[in-house]
Amino acid sequence: MKILLVNPNTTATMTETAADAARRVAAVGTEIVPATSSMGPVSIEGYYDEAFAVPGLLMEIAKGEKAGADAAIIACFDDTGLDAARALANIPVIGICEAALASVSFIAQRITIVTTMERSRLPLEHLVHRYGMSGRVKVRAADIPVLSLEDPQSNARDRLRNEIATALREDKAEAIVLGCAGMADLTRTLAEEFDVPVVDGVAAAVKQAEGLISLGLTTTKRGAYATPISKPYLGLLQGFEPKTLKAG
Amino acid sequence: MKILLVNPNTTATMTETAADAARRVAAVGTEIVPATSSMGPVSIEGYYDEAFAVPGLLMEIAKGEKAGADAAIIACFDDTGLDAARALANIPVIGICEAALASVSFIAQRITIVTTMERSRLPLEHLVHRYGMSGRVKVRAADIPVLSLEDPQSNARDRLRNEIATALREDKAEAIVLGCAGMADLTRTLAEEFDVPVVDGVAAAVKQAEGLISLGLTTTKRGAYATPISKPYLGLLQGFEPKTLKAG
Amino acid sequence: MKILLVNPNTTATMTETAADAARRVAAVGTEIVPATSSMGPVSIEGYYDEAFAVPGLLMEIAKGEKAGADAAIIACFDDTGLDAARALANIPVIGICEAALASVSFIAQRITIVTTMERSRLPLEHLVHRYGMSGRVKVRAADIPVLSLEDPQSNARDRLRNEIATALREDKAEAIVLGCAGMADLTRTLAEEFDVPVVDGVAAAVKQAEGLISLGLTTTKRGAYATPISKPYLGLLQGFEPKTLKAG
Amino acid sequence: MKILLVNPNTTATMTETAADAARRVAAVGTEIVPATSSMGPVSIEGYYDEAFAVPGLLMEIAKGEKAGADAAIIACFDDTGLDAARALANIPVIGICEAALASVSFIAQRITIVTTMERSRLPLEHLVHRYGMSGRVKVRAADIPVLSLEDPQSNARDRLRNEIATALREDKAEAIVLGCAGMADLTRTLAEEFDVPVVDGVAAAVKQAEGLISLGLTTTKRGAYATPISKPYLGLLQGFEPKTLKAG
Amino acid sequence: MKILLVNPNTTATMTETAADAARRVAAVGTEIVPATSSMGPVSIEGYYDEAFAVPGLLMEIAKGEKAGADAAIIACFDDTGLDAARALANIPVIGICEAALASVSFIAQRITIVTTMERSRLPLEHLVHRYGMSGRVKVRAADIPVLSLEDPQSNARDRLRNEIATALREDKAEAIVLGCAGMADLTRTLAEEFDVPVVDGVAAAVKQAEGLISLGLTTTKRGAYATPISKPYLGLLQGFEPKTLKAG
Amino acid sequence: MKILLVNPNTTATMTETAADAARRVAAVGTEIVPATSSMGPVSIEGYYDEAFAVPGLLMEIAKGEKAGADAAIIACFDDTGLDAARALANIPVIGICEAALASVSFIAQRITIVTTMERSRLPLEHLVHRYGMSGRVKVRAADIPVLSLEDPQSNARDRLRNEIATALREDKAEAIVLGCAGMADLTRTLAEEFDVPVVDGVAAAVKQAEGLISLGLTTTKRGAYATPISKPYLGLLQGFEPKTLKAG
Repeated sequence: MKILLVNPNTTATMTETAADAARRVAAVGTEIVPATSSMGPVSIEGYYDEAFAVPGLLMEIAKGEKAGADAAIIACFDDTGLDAARALANIPVIGICEAALASVSFIAQRITIVTTMERSRLPLEHLVHRYGMSGRVKVRAADIPVLSLEDPQSNARDRLRNEIATALREDKAEAIVLGCAGMADLTRTLAEEFDVPVVDGVAAAVKQAEGLISLGLTTTKRGAYATPISKPYLGLLQGFEPKTLKAG
Repeated sequence: MKILLVNPNTTATMTETAADAARRVAAVGTEIVPATSSMGPVSIEGYYDEAFAVPGLLMEIAKGEKAGADAAIIACFDDTGLDAARALANIPVIGICEAALASVSFIAQRITIVTTMERSRLPLEHLVHRYGMSGRVKVRAADIPVLSLEDPQSNARDRLRNEIATALREDKAEAIVLGCAGMADLTRTLAEEFDVPVVDGVAAAVKQAEGLISLGLTTTKRGAYATPISKPYLGLLQGFEPKTLKAG
Repeated sequence: MKILLVNPNTTATMTETAADAARRVAAVGTEIVPATSSMGPVSIEGYYDEAFAVPGLLMEIAKGEKAGADAAIIACFDDTGLDAARALANIPVIGICEAALASVSFIAQRITIVTTMERSRLPLEHLVHRYGMSGRVKVRAADIPVLSLEDPQSNARDRLRNEIATALREDKAEAIVLGCAGMADLTRTLAEEFDVPVVDGVAAAVKQAEGLISLGLTTTKRGAYATPISKPYLGLLQGFEPKTLKAG
Repeated sequence: MKILLVNPNTTATMTETAADAARRVAAVGTEIVPATSSMGPVSIEGYYDEAFAVPGLLMEIAKGEKAGADAAIIACFDDTGLDAARALANIPVIGICEAALASVSFIAQRITIVTTMERSRLPLEHLVHRYGMSGRVKVRAADIPVLSLEDPQSNARDRLRNEIATALREDKAEAIVLGCAGMADLTRTLAEEFDVPVVDGVAAAVKQAEGLISLGLTTTKRGAYATPISKPYLGLLQGFEPKTLKAG
Repeated sequence: MKILLVNPNTTATMTETAADAARRVAAVGTEIVPATSSMGPVSIEGYYDEAFAVPGLLMEIAKGEKAGADAAIIACFDDTGLDAARALANIPVIGICEAALASVSFIAQRITIVTTMERSRLPLEHLVHRYGMSGRVKVRAADIPVLSLEDPQSNARDRLRNEIATALREDKAEAIVLGCAGMADLTRTLAEEFDVPVVDGVAAAVKQAEGLISLGLTTTKRGAYATPISKPYLGLLQGFEPKTLKAG
Repeated sequence: MKILLVNPNTTATMTETAADAARRVAAVGTEIVPATSSMGPVSIEGYYDEAFAVPGLLMEIAKGEKAGADAAIIACFDDTGLDAARALANIPVIGICEAALASVSFIAQRITIVTTMERSRLPLEHLVHRYGMSGRVKVRAADIPVLSLEDPQSNARDRLRNEIATALREDKAEAIVLGCAGMADLTRTLAEEFDVPVVDGVAAAVKQAEGLISLGLTTTKRGAYATPISKPYLGLLQGFEPKTLKAG
């Protein structure tokens, strides 16, 4: 199995952190194929960055599918461009927020997501609502910039720990979901430290992807995920239209 | 008052239809400033087209705000890129779907939106849910391509009429919302023909925009609409980052 | 355009405060026609007062429509008698709570309403729920009697300020809605003081009314807003039945 | 026990039908005290009639409580004036729609209410939503005027039967609720004819009233049901303010 | 009337507490027939205990119905086995949580349930959701083992009082529901002490049972409550199948 | 990895069908350990059968965990006894309905479950609601007894096909979920025949189980899934209490 792991943030080191997390849990025989988007912001923090990250992300998904990927993972916790990617692709496409929530739903009832910045909190609450888990899931922001997670000098990890402690005490959280692909390497440490299940979205998405491939399930082409209609594109994005992407 | 009317479809004739609808209802002293996105698909039909339409749309909103617009309208019924545009802009940004629903909510309880294609139906149902009106609003697709609305030879208008008749009979709709900017010129005709209030989103958005400007209200800069953080952009989209867009 | 502004509280000074707020935002060419109900309690604080305010309110709406009003505003934040007024009238009828929520929904996601008394909080929460905004809107009571807002000696305004400060801090409110027609004159002051959008329902309702009139939209006469059936009325309310009201 | 049964329709024959239904199920030792409102429309069909029925209803509840009633029932299926009545009274006040739904919820999961006119359907759907039963309850209108139920020449009863048959077949209803106080005498006949539980709101309300009295439970005076504040009333309704009503 | 009161906890003293509470409110002519399940855990604290309590409970309901009971009450606040019991029985079956919520809904809008242990809180929140009252009802755990309520040495009652005080202050609760059959004897004392309506589920269930019997309503046999199909049972539970239970 | 597959129906041939479906999708290195409950009904059709199936199911889960299983699957589509099993076990426990819904949610938005009998439809609708997917998932019953699926003479498979065709046409279903463990062998045939993704819960559960094991996630022991308190059990079920089950 080949699983494409697209980082819609255009920062290659972040892709490596996610790819490491993916490889740690991948089954024997699963190849993780990492890809960093070549177009858009270096980090995705809120609605605006997300909007500009989508075209580059879709280009990587189209390339990856043509190159033989069996499933694709979008390695950003706001599930950037998920619906558009599903319309584009025949292979399954998996967001890491939805994968984390799907997996954690089997082992706990009350869950807290700890994410990076306050401006990402509302978009995540909308995702939680969309995935039907508003009654079970709270979202907390540790107030840390995304890229600071890679900086050993920052106090980002301390803030993350504080927020987890608060979630256990005040939300009576029964499990924690890490709300950023850049936190993946902390999963096991935090689980042991707080004696609570901790779920990383990248790892969860790898297992969901392997599962769907194994079940022979692909994205439906009925309804809103029907293959996009071929049509002209103008401006910088000329040449992006699906026919080109898929045939090229 | 200057109201920017951005068409995220890159088809200029469609912009003119919308601008005409806007000017018909604009107050004395309101200037409608139409803009056609120069980047992306010629028509937006579903999630995939929408994703590629957003960067060009945001560029027009940034340019329009710099040029002195007091409010911006996104003239596509799936409220393309609305949240990103609000994070970018200080002026109010209004989607035509949300404007139509806000206006119609004062005059009727049960409403049916008649849109173009089946693949647009689910995205609109998600908008209706987001705007808190799932209990009151149904969405029907007349199965007509967006651009066929401009083609006098097509049977698009007949199909639209059939779907409205069905909505009145089966949904017991008390008002009709036209679910595509390209239907704006039919509003009055259909209202008279079916003896029911018919709402066009472009016209509704103009009145909401005038209202907000007159009230001195601008987009909050707290929470998820906080001004985007300045950061590097890579690839074709290099040069799009907000500082450039706003200072440029 | 003539916009009827009915105060269902039978206190004329309160009508003047609301009419001033209305005139400040009215477009050139809009005439605000204030009316004070002549029947019922001097102030509306909770369900009981509201019930007795409705007949007098409806009488003013019937008179105003006959006198040529193009739209009517009910100037009490619990949207007193809104559905009955819509069944009675052909012109659009607008509640100031629903108008404030419709307008603020374009500029912020998380909103707090600050109202007067605890006993008004639950009725407002029901309105918020009805208008589909439970997920976005909190209601706080500053514990101040309605009429104290007109008394310069009272500490009502300090309490209002305290509650707004709490809303920004604890609710992470991105915008504030003033939950009483009697607070209208404070809108701009509070917006500057707290650097947050502040919305007054009377002003918002004027713009919604102008918008609907300009769009040529009137109350649907299908469904629950169908014209009431003419029938005998007994007791003190004899002579109130709709035929009389509308023909007289 | 004395249970006040107030008919907010000002038609005394309808009160008798309801009182008969009440007496048929009342326990030994329960006295049913019927009262017909002396002010307002002869029948309540929709929001407008409802609004004018409330003051007369509240007057009867105040009089009844003073005269020693232990609980009050509002004998109109749209639960007219329920919240205002609860603020006014210390004794429990019961709506016949809420009573019917509370009782039927113990014996069936999917329920259909069959009411009179289409214009009453939306108000009932709002009640169902308020009572938390939207997922279980459908509302159907048999398209019969309220007063026609008392006319042996009308085909009202046939229409009612047709609508019940449709509810069983299409809604897979497991129990039927009669959505009008005037249908009470048909309960047993219809239950036998269709072999399905049929619930009449008046009878259900009598049992809920007896239950609350026996449990020693009275309306809370905290929150929105706190005793109304004494204040001046103007116009025809002068003299209605609660102090007068309760002390007089 | 004969009302069967089944305690699914296999502790007879707890049955007596509940039967006393039932008899205190039973009407003249109502016979309370207590039964203690002879199979399963001595107390029900959470999902696991609940699962093992159901077969014994169903056996008592089958025996009771055959012996002539007119209605059955399940005297455990998590409404153990309610749906299965309704499928089995023709007589009405009433859970004490649903009965308490149905009764309290007539006298207050905001309600807090105070239950025993944290592990019972989530199951009760699920019941509240199922009964459509999530928007009105909070659940608090006083952190007391079920059987400690019978131990005069324990501080269980103090903890219960503390939690009620917190509910009134923080939840602005307008009424309190006691979330355990073993608290029934405290109802009146607590109501007086805190000057707030306090509802005990056992007492409420008795009145709901009397009401349904008096209305001639029995469990629907359509849909999911249809009589179970007769089929072989294996293992220890051999002989439990419904035909045996009902004919035996 | 060892995955325990417990059939709570006491019919061994049904266990074999499910085990075959499980083995077809199991990863290399995954051992499927089937177990048939030895106590309870031969097939589970509705609430009543479900209640009697739980103790035997829990016994198998306790035995399986002690024998070294890494995860457990409950192979009945109504997710029988799921919460109790999670409180009992430390290993992850997976229901086949929730697994099917979790997996299908990645590839389609509108889904229809086709189950066996009408009496199972409401319990499944409750599960769908609990899993947060009411807005996306419909449930249809093909009106076929569970055991008829194993009978080549019955017309069960034709009825299943008819119901799938209706779901595609009327519900606009984008994917189909088979709502009974006994349908597992039909998955691929139906997917090809109708050209739509078809999901079998047993297969989906195997992949979810493998995923959770690989991620090192086990059932939380906080909140309602805390380990049951050891306590005496009476009657036939004596000896079932968790200490015995887990230590034995």
